[in-house]
Amino acid sequence: MQLCRAFVPVAYSFLFRTGACCMGHMALFVNGDGKLNTLFCATREAAIKASSRVLQESKPSTPRTKKSISEKKTMSAEGNGGAMATNKQVILRDYVSGFPKESDFEITTTNFELRLPEGSNSVLVKNLYLSCDPYMRSRMGKPSAFALAQAFTPGKPILGFGVSRVIESGHPDYKQGDLLWGIVGWEEYSVVTPEMHFKIHDTDVPLSYYTGLLGMPGMTAYAGFHEVCSPKKGETVYVSAASGAVGQLVGQFAKMMGCYVVGSAGSTEKVDLLKNKFGFDDAFNYKDEGDLSAALKRCFPKGIDIYFENVGGKMLDAVLLNMNMHGRIAVCGMISQYNLEDQEGVHNLTSIIYKRIRIQGFVVFDFFDKYSKFLEFVIPCIKEEKIAYVEDVAEGLEKGPEALVGLFYGKNVGKQVVVVARE
Amino acid sequence: MQLCRAFVPVAYSFLFRTGACCMGHMALFVNGDGKLNTLFCATREAAIKASSRVLQESKPSTPRTKKSISEKKTMSAEGNGGAMATNKQVILRDYVSGFPKESDFEITTTNFELRLPEGSNSVLVKNLYLSCDPYMRSRMGKPSAFALAQAFTPGKPILGFGVSRVIESGHPDYKQGDLLWGIVGWEEYSVVTPEMHFKIHDTDVPLSYYTGLLGMPGMTAYAGFHEVCSPKKGETVYVSAASGAVGQLVGQFAKMMGCYVVGSAGSTEKVDLLKNKFGFDDAFNYKDEGDLSAALKRCFPKGIDIYFENVGGKMLDAVLLNMNMHGRIAVCGMISQYNLEDQEGVHNLTSIIYKRIRIQGFVVFDFFDKYSKFLEFVIPCIKEEKIAYVEDVAEGLEKGPEALVGLFYGKNVGKQVVVVARE
Repeated sequence: MQLCRAFVPVAYSFLFRTGACCMGHMALFVNGDGKLNTLFCATREAAIKASSRVLQESKPSTPRTKKSISEKKTMSAEGNGGAMATNKQVILRDYVSGFPKESDFEITTTNFELRLPEGSNSVLVKNLYLSCDPYMRSRMGKPSAFALAQAFTPGKPILGFGVSRVIESGHPDYKQGDLLWGIVGWEEYSVVTPEMHFKIHDTDVPLSYYTGLLGMPGMTAYAGFHEVCSPKKGETVYVSAASGAVGQLVGQFAKMMGCYVVGSAGSTEKVDLLKNKFGFDDAFNYKDEGDLSAALKRCFPKGIDIYFENVGGKMLDAVLLNMNMHGRIAVCGMISQYNLEDQEGVHNLTSIIYKRIRIQGFVVFDFFDKYSKFLEFVIPCIKEEKIAYVEDVAEGLEKGPEALVGLFYGKNVGKQVVVVARE
Repeated sequence: MQLCRAFVPVAYSFLFRTGACCMGHMALFVNGDGKLNTLFCATREAAIKASSRVLQESKPSTPRTKKSISEKKTMSAEGNGGAMATNKQVILRDYVSGFPKESDFEITTTNFELRLPEGSNSVLVKNLYLSCDPYMRSRMGKPSAFALAQAFTPGKPILGFGVSRVIESGHPDYKQGDLLWGIVGWEEYSVVTPEMHFKIHDTDVPLSYYTGLLGMPGMTAYAGFHEVCSPKKGETVYVSAASGAVGQLVGQFAKMMGCYVVGSAGSTEKVDLLKNKFGFDDAFNYKDEGDLSAALKRCFPKGIDIYFENVGGKMLDAVLLNMNMHGRIAVCGMISQYNLEDQEGVHNLTSIIYKRIRIQGFVVFDFFDKYSKFLEFVIPCIKEEKIAYVEDVAEGLEKGPEALVGLFYGKNVGKQVVVVARE
């Protein structure tokens, strides 16, 4: 168990911090145009090193030297010339164990020189929207010998997906004023290596959507459902944590395909959203169900063909009892397990044999080569109001810790976003 | 848990008793030439009914009416004309809970008329070899409301795979003297519906091999490894219960492909077989290892690409910690769980997300369309001694219960066979 607890967080970090990872002999990097760059290496080890190199180059922004305080000028968000600004940041106090608390974080303000170093190929960005995602829990724990990448560093700003405006660019793919999304610090200004970010071209949609529907969670839902679940028209689909950033979209993609879709969530308000806003065929509040398997049997009298797994533990056990022959379980996340010292045991795994069930873990980075195709599909859906999307918006970086911690108590209704600046 | 325990056995029964099953809108029947017949149905329900019909028609042979005792003639194994014989049978006394015991079975002898009813399209066979397989445990428990097919019936002979000689045939595909393998009663003579059996054409190999290497376990190893594991040359493969009927073959198929193969088993003798008879690169006795994960780490310092799962429970938990990115787990069986009232919990499932692990349950019946291809591959391997194969042979039907029960205590070394008659 100790091995496992240590292993999970660091691997998540590796994937979500960098936008770089290693697949077999191939190192993957997402470039500024949203295209996936691949670097084929002679050996698997070389690929791991290559992706690790990108990881090393992706340093979170840190306060510049104290001496620059004396060079303070009037700050300008439009351009700079070494203008000084204050940079509010969300700092991790210490490694987290168990459920995260607001007091695990503190808000600090540092002085920050709005200028890139000479010859830098990075970009200096102003962060507009930050994304609260369950995987971030995995980066809050202690680093481990099994680490593929660093956990968050106590005393430094935490990192996450965000939408940002370029203030200054040393990278040929970006210029001042461009918008991008990708991993940034939880702070007002960051310096990022743009290989790990997507340039935003469509700006006649709410920019915050690039933290969700048009960003990592949207792509997760799209690829997870269409590429991992192998769905067919008429099949039955169950989505747990269904009102969240990913779940609400999976359900709608499944409905578009002609599936029968049921979701579960943790409040009456969320269940109402599922049924009346997102168009799920049925929904239930898992907290009201003494017997999860019976609830699923009620909703799926003929069984479940596809389960989109966001929860794990007891929910997975109940689902296994209700899966159909040749069923598919796409494992996107297991939020019920992230804060536990000892993960719950799943007992009903023998059923996967005779039911020929496929359980497939996946990470969205493996599918970013389909991001352009995804945008071509989803942006018209937004404009034609074929997709409903609900955000839970926290105003101001100082509200970030509360919003982030709230994820693990199910406080958010819809995609949890933190507004840093509306420009 | 109760739901699961009930569900597992009946589904297994359905699959292994009949040789008929339902896949989507398709009912599958294995015919006498070893070819898979498919019957496409308008609806899934129709397909289920069609495969159930075959199941119903596949009645185990039962003692004929007592009055036929008065018609007793001299028995002839070559032919008959209503000859009477005694038929020794292995009877299930009552449903089994927990580990099966020899006393759960009794040997009885009944009178048996060696003649098919007028107009029958069945075949009357003399059973030569019977197969002891772990899945049979799932048929010994109580029937359940979730039953897809019947459990063994207390007071009746149990059923299993066997190799048999046709004494009389009412079926156009079979004639007297033919050999076949498939599901028969644990008895000296059975009447079977031959749609569920494979005719044996190659007889210059030991006939008992059709209970193992050339039968269901061989096909399980072949399809499970090549079709489910998606193996590539140079990958690392771990096989649990590796000296058993399936495991010993999976290891050898993996070696033929150029994989690095490690197996585990439960005694020094078995480990020695793995290393020195079956050509595994390494092997360990799981009973000697206090920390299974550490044992796997020692054998696979660079991790496991493929796990062929025969065991479940703690072993699966340890494997999950040692799997590589994009690893595959083919779930053939979970023998450690079959006799437990409450199945063990598996705790390390979150690792399947970031490692993108695929866990795929499978049943050999889905792959019997490849049986001819398998024989074309494997029979030359046997003749050229490219495959080693070890059987554990119990002589005499009366030794059947001991041999069968022994499976669940790991007493067998190699494929457990019961010799009913050597003709």
